[in-house]
Amino acid sequence: MSVINSYMMNGKGNSMDKVRRVERMVAMTKLLVDSPQKLIPLNYFCDFFGMAKSTVSEDLTCVRQSMEHFQLGTLETVAGVAGGVRFIPHRKGTQANDILRDVQTRLMEPDRIIPGGFIYMSDILYDWHVMTRLGEIIMTRFMDRNPDYILTVETKGIPLAVMVARAFNKPLVIARRDSKVTEGSAISINYVTGSSGRIQTMTLTKRAIPPNARVLIIDDFMKAGGTAKGLKELVLEMSGVVVGTGVLVATAEPNPKLIDDYESLFTFYGIDENTKKINIEPVFDEE
Amino acid sequence: MSVINSYMMNGKGNSMDKVRRVERMVAMTKLLVDSPQKLIPLNYFCDFFGMAKSTVSEDLTCVRQSMEHFQLGTLETVAGVAGGVRFIPHRKGTQANDILRDVQTRLMEPDRIIPGGFIYMSDILYDWHVMTRLGEIIMTRFMDRNPDYILTVETKGIPLAVMVARAFNKPLVIARRDSKVTEGSAISINYVTGSSGRIQTMTLTKRAIPPNARVLIIDDFMKAGGTAKGLKELVLEMSGVVVGTGVLVATAEPNPKLIDDYESLFTFYGIDENTKKINIEPVFDEE
Repeated sequence: MSVINSYMMNGKGNSMDKVRRVERMVAMTKLLVDSPQKLIPLNYFCDFFGMAKSTVSEDLTCVRQSMEHFQLGTLETVAGVAGGVRFIPHRKGTQANDILRDVQTRLMEPDRIIPGGFIYMSDILYDWHVMTRLGEIIMTRFMDRNPDYILTVETKGIPLAVMVARAFNKPLVIARRDSKVTEGSAISINYVTGSSGRIQTMTLTKRAIPPNARVLIIDDFMKAGGTAKGLKELVLEMSGVVVGTGVLVATAEPNPKLIDDYESLFTFYGIDENTKKINIEPVFDEE
Repeated sequence: MSVINSYMMNGKGNSMDKVRRVERMVAMTKLLVDSPQKLIPLNYFCDFFGMAKSTVSEDLTCVRQSMEHFQLGTLETVAGVAGGVRFIPHRKGTQANDILRDVQTRLMEPDRIIPGGFIYMSDILYDWHVMTRLGEIIMTRFMDRNPDYILTVETKGIPLAVMVARAFNKPLVIARRDSKVTEGSAISINYVTGSSGRIQTMTLTKRAIPPNARVLIIDDFMKAGGTAKGLKELVLEMSGVVVGTGVLVATAEPNPKLIDDYESLFTFYGIDENTKKINIEPVFDEE
């Protein structure tokens, strides 16, 4: 029995108590929201609540309407024997832009400036609340690419990649900077970081990505694009297909970068050394 | 305006449309579940739905009852001017044990054995769905320690630590194996890994943890406990307090380990080389 099965079945749902409709709504919403993009058969809810299919259908219509009304995501219905419902945590338009504006405000705090023209971002990168929402925005923007896997390289982009994987409900794969014995046979590549020109190594376990898998690359920061290019080569070595690259922050310069098919949530124009102003702009959705 | 504010306000809730109670329930549940452990004032919901406080209170009672009935977590009410409601994603008892049993089944798959007596766990460690639930179990077990920060060291324990931080709604801090210029001034320590006896370095940005902060350490695997001990020393160097250590898998041997105050979700007894059986047992909750 899979985790989702046992998770759903071990409430008291099987006790056949008739619960009020509003209470079913609460449980239904919790179960759907907890498992974004998972296709849940109608029969699950029938068993869980001890209700007829027609009642469950009515309930789900109500969940769908509420989510639409309050812009909380989308409830998608898949018809047929293998059908069911699936919650998609869409974040777009005004809602996405407001989130990006809030993150921009945080990124522009003057005490983030570190000698050398860098900005300190770890507290934001490790903030699950922000990363959950940015992961949902990235998912929404890359949805038509249909990735099978989400790939990142250690370390700072991992929480964002976890949340992108969550929003897509796809497995996360993490490339390492070195090869660890506990991961079995692996493929390593050397690549040149575009900005510093240093040679670095990246390693990926062989069994992490099957051939022909569609891979979305996620990283926290892109300057010249060397790391993203290295990740792309790693995917090609494993006979996978890169369907896109999403980064949190990309610098305006250099331009063009070593890869051309990427999207960033923010563009970093640099720091004004005199005014201490951090110039960073969101890439907004159409509203 | 904080992200949660803007998130909550930019639905259509301010339009003062009177929506049906069941639809309010759906939106309320989604907002609460999306922000575990966040104290949300009643006034938020009043503004969001354009409803009186008495109505919102009734609605929340209904959410609470449903969550209790279906064991979906706890809705806690904080009285007073600074009060509100807070969703706590408790996972305990039978429900926690069923999840642990499912993960045990996956961990025991024979093709996980890697030469050298290791087991391949990355696919599970990077599975956000499983890590979310295990993060909630760990939160429930360590709740009385009241941590202010969740600390881990790169790489494989990060997704679990993200989800523990999410379940606690506390900031995540990640120690690095090397010092990166983009993180500003840092504290480094050398420590001896208990199993291999090798000397390793761990680094933490100075601004990551304030003095007297209560820190919960999270890691994916513990053998002798050298890494956990190193993390503990790092916290002490920053004048913090370690309130506990939670690991996914701890080996049965060596025993005792270099630290004594730890809890694991699983105990690994080793691999039978002849039968290829992986001996790993969950540490169950009382049912």
